[in-house]
Amino acid sequence: MTPTFRQRIGNILDRPAVTRAIVAIIVFNAILLGLETSDPVMDAAGPLILTLDRICLAIFVVEIVAKLYVQRLTFFRSGWNLFDFVVIGIALVPTGQGLSVLRALRVLRALRVISAAPTLRRVVEGFVSALPGMASVFLLMGIIFYIASVMATQLFGGAFPEWFGSLGHSAYSLFQIMTLESWSMGIVRPLMEEFPYAWAFFIPFILVTTFAVVNLLVGLIVNSMQDAHAEEGNAATDAYRDEVLARLVAIEKRLGEGRGENATPH
Amino acid sequence: MTPTFRQRIGNILDRPAVTRAIVAIIVFNAILLGLETSDPVMDAAGPLILTLDRICLAIFVVEIVAKLYVQRLTFFRSGWNLFDFVVIGIALVPTGQGLSVLRALRVLRALRVISAAPTLRRVVEGFVSALPGMASVFLLMGIIFYIASVMATQLFGGAFPEWFGSLGHSAYSLFQIMTLESWSMGIVRPLMEEFPYAWAFFIPFILVTTFAVVNLLVGLIVNSMQDAHAEEGNAATDAYRDEVLARLVAIEKRLGEGRGENATPH
Amino acid sequence: MTPTFRQRIGNILDRPAVTRAIVAIIVFNAILLGLETSDPVMDAAGPLILTLDRICLAIFVVEIVAKLYVQRLTFFRSGWNLFDFVVIGIALVPTGQGLSVLRALRVLRALRVISAAPTLRRVVEGFVSALPGMASVFLLMGIIFYIASVMATQLFGGAFPEWFGSLGHSAYSLFQIMTLESWSMGIVRPLMEEFPYAWAFFIPFILVTTFAVVNLLVGLIVNSMQDAHAEEGNAATDAYRDEVLARLVAIEKRLGEGRGENATPH
Amino acid sequence: MTPTFRQRIGNILDRPAVTRAIVAIIVFNAILLGLETSDPVMDAAGPLILTLDRICLAIFVVEIVAKLYVQRLTFFRSGWNLFDFVVIGIALVPTGQGLSVLRALRVLRALRVISAAPTLRRVVEGFVSALPGMASVFLLMGIIFYIASVMATQLFGGAFPEWFGSLGHSAYSLFQIMTLESWSMGIVRPLMEEFPYAWAFFIPFILVTTFAVVNLLVGLIVNSMQDAHAEEGNAATDAYRDEVLARLVAIEKRLGEGRGENATPH
Repeated sequence: MTPTFRQRIGNILDRPAVTRAIVAIIVFNAILLGLETSDPVMDAAGPLILTLDRICLAIFVVEIVAKLYVQRLTFFRSGWNLFDFVVIGIALVPTGQGLSVLRALRVLRALRVISAAPTLRRVVEGFVSALPGMASVFLLMGIIFYIASVMATQLFGGAFPEWFGSLGHSAYSLFQIMTLESWSMGIVRPLMEEFPYAWAFFIPFILVTTFAVVNLLVGLIVNSMQDAHAEEGNAATDAYRDEVLARLVAIEKRLGEGRGENATPH
Repeated sequence: MTPTFRQRIGNILDRPAVTRAIVAIIVFNAILLGLETSDPVMDAAGPLILTLDRICLAIFVVEIVAKLYVQRLTFFRSGWNLFDFVVIGIALVPTGQGLSVLRALRVLRALRVISAAPTLRRVVEGFVSALPGMASVFLLMGIIFYIASVMATQLFGGAFPEWFGSLGHSAYSLFQIMTLESWSMGIVRPLMEEFPYAWAFFIPFILVTTFAVVNLLVGLIVNSMQDAHAEEGNAATDAYRDEVLARLVAIEKRLGEGRGENATPH
Repeated sequence: MTPTFRQRIGNILDRPAVTRAIVAIIVFNAILLGLETSDPVMDAAGPLILTLDRICLAIFVVEIVAKLYVQRLTFFRSGWNLFDFVVIGIALVPTGQGLSVLRALRVLRALRVISAAPTLRRVVEGFVSALPGMASVFLLMGIIFYIASVMATQLFGGAFPEWFGSLGHSAYSLFQIMTLESWSMGIVRPLMEEFPYAWAFFIPFILVTTFAVVNLLVGLIVNSMQDAHAEEGNAATDAYRDEVLARLVAIEKRLGEGRGENATPH
Repeated sequence: MTPTFRQRIGNILDRPAVTRAIVAIIVFNAILLGLETSDPVMDAAGPLILTLDRICLAIFVVEIVAKLYVQRLTFFRSGWNLFDFVVIGIALVPTGQGLSVLRALRVLRALRVISAAPTLRRVVEGFVSALPGMASVFLLMGIIFYIASVMATQLFGGAFPEWFGSLGHSAYSLFQIMTLESWSMGIVRPLMEEFPYAWAFFIPFILVTTFAVVNLLVGLIVNSMQDAHAEEGNAATDAYRDEVLARLVAIEKRLGEGRGENATPH
């Protein structure tokens, strides 16, 4: 039975040489995108670089279409495939005048190196798998930020509209304060000239949010430790425990037999 | 036996549907309070929002009165109930002119979502339960801050009243220095132009306080690890150990009997 | 046999009531020292506060002389006693005009609350006992700081004497850079206008020192964990292991006897 | 058999007294290099210090030549030897006019104290051995920095050439932002006056990079814990387990014999 055309394409895509070639093209493309930011380089070899960039993009499109053809709808079950699909899709959107944001987003294409290289993929998967365990702390942080933003807008929004003029301004300023950047000299000291008790709002906010961040960190460490612990030594421990119990059962059984043999002859 | 009126109200309050409805109203109310900070929204739909806000508040008051009626004095035994009581109480205080602080505090009502949602409640309870273990380090930090504030006020208060003019100013400035915000460029370098040895006060202060903070963090991690450790693998370990010991005792007993049987017939 | 006068004084000093009274006096004295920083309070009740302060100091002197009389030379074997001795000694030095530093150091007396309260004492002892394990990392940090200071002085001292004019200036500036305070906007960006490659000195310095600090932290956590681990579960584990081995030995011995008994009669 | 001249020199180099003398000379040389940064000291004793410095350097050259003669090509297998070789080599390069960088690099000689003192050597080896386990996270950080630099240059390079004018400028500014130094007041707030959505680029960047740094830290802690765990308690555990199993096997064997002995006589 000869494989169908679809199977043969699937086999080609799975070949290590093809995977490695794709990674190499992604890296090459990332270098091209870096060169595009340099004016002297673009003056000297602009057309060549843009042509090579388009060839790379064409290869990516061919690859993703081939994958779609092979895997059909199961293609969209993998988060990594979705990621590739979106990133290539952004690169294909025509960048009209002024849409410099879209042109900048094309660089995200270089992130495909993560989905293509298994080691990096695992690191990111490790990061992502740590997120759900921290969901409730994130939710709590969100609530604290929301409430603190509403309060800061009501309290200081009138006098300091640049920092606390709206919910959005307040949330940004509070994020800055949480990172401790210029929180005192830049924001709270000027505020305290008008509201002498402003510290009574910001110091508890700093203590609560940094404490929550520290707890996130501690939670991450404890989870990782337990995973590592569970994987590692327990296989040996379980094997040992099983052997001890099996031997104890065997001894008891023999003693039962032994007693039986001793008992019957008499 | 038909339940009394009080029991029936208690049953209604405990229904999952009622709990979920209360959480939904808290979230809805939080959104209203957020909208109240936006001038264009208030110009367009101010009366509607304020009316909805009052309805939400009325529901909360009914809920808390019902709970009080059901649980009577045991109501005040739970910290979460006390929290709800205070937060609703603040919202009921009439906000006269200029009492913008009280109006801002009404937003704390949104924090009730924490006491109403069990997942968030557990996270906060986890945070709070970590505090007593850190009490002595907090006390130590307090002593260090107090002594450093007194010293800073005596040493630098005369020349730099803005930063170290009183115990309160000094404590605030030292808190800022502990968070490392502008400690050198903003405070210590200007001080060193008048007191060239000011670094001999502030660098040890930074080292001691950050070391204490790090120890707080380490203590938290170690405690969490031990709790996690104790909960997790030990149930399996204890079961295994109990079984091994029981089997060993059984073997010894049988051997004793075995010997006895062997011994008596002769 | 009646106790000698020395023994009786020793007994009095060891009484919990006396210890608690001393702690209370230290706290009271700390409050007095705080009040002394407030001009309005001193204007109103200055002589009273100073008199109470002297009475407190007199009590401390009596206590320490009594301890010295009871313990004699063994008094100086305890680090805490030495600490009390120095702190009280500083308070007794006459503060002439302008010696505001000595007057400020008198506040250190309040630190005696740490040596007098056992809980705080243990926390500090925990901190101090963590230090030797970190000695080699501290030594390494010292070497890195020394070498970086010499290099920074030679490279940037001529153009920026305010920051890198001498070894001392450089060490202070590098400490500030290590704490990441205004390292770029305040120091490295201005430097890079004259020395475009200054980042090649400072970014490695930041990476190396923060990595060393992180390793200090990790080392602290790992040590604490092991101590906690060793104290905690191992007592139970050791007891269990001893019992298992004892029972196994007993079973083997009985089997030996059993065989012997079985063997001899025939 | 008398040792060859090469062996005798090898023996001399290995003597503890010689090693200690070399460490002492390195420390002495480091102090000299520190004194060279002080103008008054150089005015008073410049020629003496420079002469002593040259004598130290001569001793180092003799030592390294002797090591090379003894160990021949195996000399270059040790990273520490290579380090010493490069550091001494730098010190021998003639420092012409203006080559102040080379003169500053001569201070690296003092780093030899690390390669000469075994305790410090172990700390650095511990640091270095932790690096490979973090390679994939470092690679990921590199990719994130590269992509973010390209994007920042394209988006903000035109309007803010000082911060984001080229890939290099952007990478430096993003490093500063990752360390949270003046990220908001110094960079993002000015940017947001021209690009109101600049926060949508920088806040995710801060979250992703700090999360990656935290994961690096957590990975380090978990690895160190496992190493510590593996070294420590497991020797005792393994010995205990081996003994239990050996005793159980012995009991089973005896029971087999016992049954045999019991069985045969009848």
